[in-house]
Amino acid sequence: MGLTLTEKILKAHLVEGEMVKGSEIGIRIDQTLTQDATGTMAYLEFEAMGVPRVRTERSVAYIDHNTLQNGFENADDHRFIGSVAKKHGIYFSRPGNGICHQVHLERFGVPGKTLIGSDSHTPTGGGIGMIAMGAGGLDVAVAMGGGTYYITCPKVVKVELTGKLSPWVAAKDVILEVLRRMSVKGGVGKVIEYCGEGVKTLSVPERATITNMGAELGATTSIFPSDEVTKQFLEAQGRGEVWSEQKADADAVYDEELHIDLSELVPLAACPHSPDNVKTVAEIGKLKIDQVCIGSCTNSSLLDMMKVAHILKGKTVNPDVSLAIAPGSKQVLNMMADMGILGTLIAAGARILESACGPCIGMGQSPNSGGISLRTFNRNFLGRSGTKDGQIYLVSPELAAYSALTGYLSDPRELGEMPDFVLPEKFTVNDNMIVLPAPEEEMDKVEILRGPNIKPFPETAPLEATIEAGCSLKVGDNITTDHIMPAGAKILPLRSNIPAISQHCFTVCDEAFPKRAKEMGQSIIVGGSNYGQGSSREHAALAPLYLGVKAVLVKSFARIHRANLINAGILPLTFVNEADYEKISQGDVLELADIRKHIEAGETTLTLVNKTTGAEIPVLCELTGRTKDIILAGGLLDYTRDKLSK
Amino acid sequence: MGLTLTEKILKAHLVEGEMVKGSEIGIRIDQTLTQDATGTMAYLEFEAMGVPRVRTERSVAYIDHNTLQNGFENADDHRFIGSVAKKHGIYFSRPGNGICHQVHLERFGVPGKTLIGSDSHTPTGGGIGMIAMGAGGLDVAVAMGGGTYYITCPKVVKVELTGKLSPWVAAKDVILEVLRRMSVKGGVGKVIEYCGEGVKTLSVPERATITNMGAELGATTSIFPSDEVTKQFLEAQGRGEVWSEQKADADAVYDEELHIDLSELVPLAACPHSPDNVKTVAEIGKLKIDQVCIGSCTNSSLLDMMKVAHILKGKTVNPDVSLAIAPGSKQVLNMMADMGILGTLIAAGARILESACGPCIGMGQSPNSGGISLRTFNRNFLGRSGTKDGQIYLVSPELAAYSALTGYLSDPRELGEMPDFVLPEKFTVNDNMIVLPAPEEEMDKVEILRGPNIKPFPETAPLEATIEAGCSLKVGDNITTDHIMPAGAKILPLRSNIPAISQHCFTVCDEAFPKRAKEMGQSIIVGGSNYGQGSSREHAALAPLYLGVKAVLVKSFARIHRANLINAGILPLTFVNEADYEKISQGDVLELADIRKHIEAGETTLTLVNKTTGAEIPVLCELTGRTKDIILAGGLLDYTRDKLSK
Repeated sequence: MGLTLTEKILKAHLVEGEMVKGSEIGIRIDQTLTQDATGTMAYLEFEAMGVPRVRTERSVAYIDHNTLQNGFENADDHRFIGSVAKKHGIYFSRPGNGICHQVHLERFGVPGKTLIGSDSHTPTGGGIGMIAMGAGGLDVAVAMGGGTYYITCPKVVKVELTGKLSPWVAAKDVILEVLRRMSVKGGVGKVIEYCGEGVKTLSVPERATITNMGAELGATTSIFPSDEVTKQFLEAQGRGEVWSEQKADADAVYDEELHIDLSELVPLAACPHSPDNVKTVAEIGKLKIDQVCIGSCTNSSLLDMMKVAHILKGKTVNPDVSLAIAPGSKQVLNMMADMGILGTLIAAGARILESACGPCIGMGQSPNSGGISLRTFNRNFLGRSGTKDGQIYLVSPELAAYSALTGYLSDPRELGEMPDFVLPEKFTVNDNMIVLPAPEEEMDKVEILRGPNIKPFPETAPLEATIEAGCSLKVGDNITTDHIMPAGAKILPLRSNIPAISQHCFTVCDEAFPKRAKEMGQSIIVGGSNYGQGSSREHAALAPLYLGVKAVLVKSFARIHRANLINAGILPLTFVNEADYEKISQGDVLELADIRKHIEAGETTLTLVNKTTGAEIPVLCELTGRTKDIILAGGLLDYTRDKLSK
Repeated sequence: MGLTLTEKILKAHLVEGEMVKGSEIGIRIDQTLTQDATGTMAYLEFEAMGVPRVRTERSVAYIDHNTLQNGFENADDHRFIGSVAKKHGIYFSRPGNGICHQVHLERFGVPGKTLIGSDSHTPTGGGIGMIAMGAGGLDVAVAMGGGTYYITCPKVVKVELTGKLSPWVAAKDVILEVLRRMSVKGGVGKVIEYCGEGVKTLSVPERATITNMGAELGATTSIFPSDEVTKQFLEAQGRGEVWSEQKADADAVYDEELHIDLSELVPLAACPHSPDNVKTVAEIGKLKIDQVCIGSCTNSSLLDMMKVAHILKGKTVNPDVSLAIAPGSKQVLNMMADMGILGTLIAAGARILESACGPCIGMGQSPNSGGISLRTFNRNFLGRSGTKDGQIYLVSPELAAYSALTGYLSDPRELGEMPDFVLPEKFTVNDNMIVLPAPEEEMDKVEILRGPNIKPFPETAPLEATIEAGCSLKVGDNITTDHIMPAGAKILPLRSNIPAISQHCFTVCDEAFPKRAKEMGQSIIVGGSNYGQGSSREHAALAPLYLGVKAVLVKSFARIHRANLINAGILPLTFVNEADYEKISQGDVLELADIRKHIEAGETTLTLVNKTTGAEIPVLCELTGRTKDIILAGGLLDYTRDKLSK
């Protein structure tokens, strides 16, 4: 039985477990990337592991999120990351050099390799035949230290592409069509693998648009084969030597199949407020627009910019529309300048922004109240633009640029004949904004630049023999990670400062919690069902860890947050009888006697005694194998440190 | 006796008073400009005046301050200003089109004309022989309505320039030298008039750098003659027809004289935290730098960018330095792209920002903690960069660019021979981002776009017969306008929303004040000496007006705030006997009986009765002529409205 491309690459990197779908497997990671919003914590974690030099084939630290710099924190973070990178063997892409995924594709990605990145759009690398996945900061830190990365062995969905895109129909419309069919939940536990005759009609930037936005399917990742088109792209980047052919076996067996005839696609838009709320331009009808934003890791390649410039050449942006363009990388921006297309965009009235994530993550260019904004980005969640009632439509650069001229959501096919947009045979390669790490023998000379906002990873300790702790907080059902660790413009700059960010922990529910928990020394949180749903932010576990939380006892957990608690060394407990939730009040003293001994013995049903009331409460602690060892060690960091030292 | 150029232009525009130095004169204003941070209020005031179309020769509304757009407020403000401009006959420069002063110089300024702008760096226009002055928003609104602008008839300082700048010594060094000699207070009540043989060696952008930063002298304005160099510049802009020669009479008599031999100047820097803390590079010594920012209304011309590109060509920004460049206008940016110099800057690793004020006003690019930043800007006040302990040095673009390569504050003369930088004979003129107003017959069709943050100017009323009001607040000495109306990232976006911004009025001193004052309906504030010092913001009068404050009774006032109170129709009173300050407590009921009658009669010593204690307190109310009429009318708006309707 033949293998899918996904299975081939995973198998070649398998270090633990077996290739059984739905079971946990451990894989070796060849490359890592970080961006700055998640990167500071990842590097604090890496430092805490005590590994002197990264053990990956290539690790790159990018600065692309916090580039507006409204306050000292951002520049401090950039300097910290730059110095850590220099010391520990990591390439450093300076602010202004571009968006991590675009730059990584251009300068570092290698077909057939594994890549994890502390950013959910890391699957962009699938455009050149990598298994490239988004991961938590701690996962990336562990991988940099040479540790294994664990995932659920994924199902593989075959998306067979046939035909060829019609003029002014774009790669963006391909992924919007996949989202329309599969929905934002359709990809969970799956890798989306593209194949078929249509693949060779798509350039690498187009493929990368598709794999990038595959993240919105909830997929583990997406992947294209590496073929002659890939080879040409890498050769144009002066990196032909890293190319290898990567493709599925002819008789590969897939778990699901989908067919898309490229020639049948039409321009699409994902309407507010979900990437899978996809409609045709005709279905949406007449829609006056206020803003157009072009860029982001989804659509900021030179090819995208060439198309946009062609459409805008000699024209003027509609007087009622603000058009902002953020090219994806210094390479793209520099070639745009040299090819004259940057001048074309400026002349047409485009506002040229720095090469960075920018408006896609709500960093500037928030639309007007209730404003209708067409964006070539990947997410249109409510409020993400920075304007609560902003109406965001996700579209192709072609549709965006044409609409910026008409002032209405417009079908770019009205532009008529489309020229053949051909990427240059050679890209301008100038890596002068990528700082190489210091040679190993000089690493001790590198001083780590820690601004006042950068605080070390919280202290951890192996699981104690017995836990006796007060209940510091009792909450109800459906607590989200936004309750536990709020985000927003005020709190985001504190991501590298756990002591400071912890002062906002649970303050949405109870303003006094951080102070109370800290005063109690150690404590236990009690909650209802679906505790920890929502965003995957690891800070929702690290802040409680800093505040001395030893266990969280709830009716049920959301999956990712439970994993984050284990990574932080916090015991995840559930009630055997949900009714026992009533037997604990905030302030009660709780005891888990001989907890370490029980966990070591692999016992999963334990007894918690409410020493205030005398009640004995049976609780579940389902830990096995690796997760058990992580809890015993005091968290994933300590576990990895121990393991690496052996 | 001959006249200075300043006197000639003022005399030609005199509509009230006599040309006696130190006395108030009223002059006709030919042109106005606004930027967006002050513009929303200026246009709300203009609307409140009820004048249908501006009566100036040219009024232009620019968007250049709030261009990052972290929230809906900024885009809403831009749309509001755009729609008001369209309706009322004002040219609208769209976001991205550049910094008001740079664009105005390029496209609208006319030698010999008067210009006021709601921005303190309006004197940039003096570079082409205009009398161009910064003014309050209400002043600009009145001027747009055809009203007179009142100033103190200024003294005129002659700065005679001889010789020629040495290679790599810049126009910036000229104004830094003037600042070094005169200090930031040296220009108060004066116009700085440049003349002498050295003038013709300076291009218009260089002259504009000098007049722009003349604002830091505290001067009324600065001015250069309009000569052949000016003519060439205007011809290159396709506006040769607006040129006229403007110069002082040969026998003009000046109040002060200064001589600067350009050939003796060396590269200078204004050290933290004042523009007049000027030293030579040698005096400062070895200084490692973290950041370089090039741009702002002081140094963002094409000529500046040509020099910077020459220095950076083929080089890479020092790895420890972040270099950000914000070109001054779309024209500059577009020509940079077309001339290939934008590509040069990108290749060297510069971070290209949108054409706007940006980091100069703390909008982004805040340096790291304690970071040392060289900036080509005009102000280096403590904290203005957005980083409290940032160390800002104000320098020329030449010094900035060279230092960005070396990583240290460096003398650009080390670059050796300097090529002859010649401005193009023709600038690329493309005004497609300047929206023309609707024709007068179509103005009724223009809908004013008022976002939820844009609220009308507070209601005003003529001075009442008798004021009986409680004391809503009693404060001590040296209250600043920052106490009265705080600024900062949280409060600035509320500048077009007096009801909302008023909720922050005096909260630094007393959190309960806004609520208490509003509940009291009308009230009186009592304070100590030097009340209202600091920034000139008119919101420090408009917020109290909104909260119902009828009079402010203090030991003494700062000059500008007293004027703002009068403009807002709030009675400015001082104690005849300072000791009487003790005779009023917060909450006391105070009465100014027959106040309208007394003011109408021109009485300046009045009696305030403390009805709670029975004390009779003599107070001064020194109002004469115009200011008396303004107070009687209920503020400058009503006064102007009445006057215009007659």
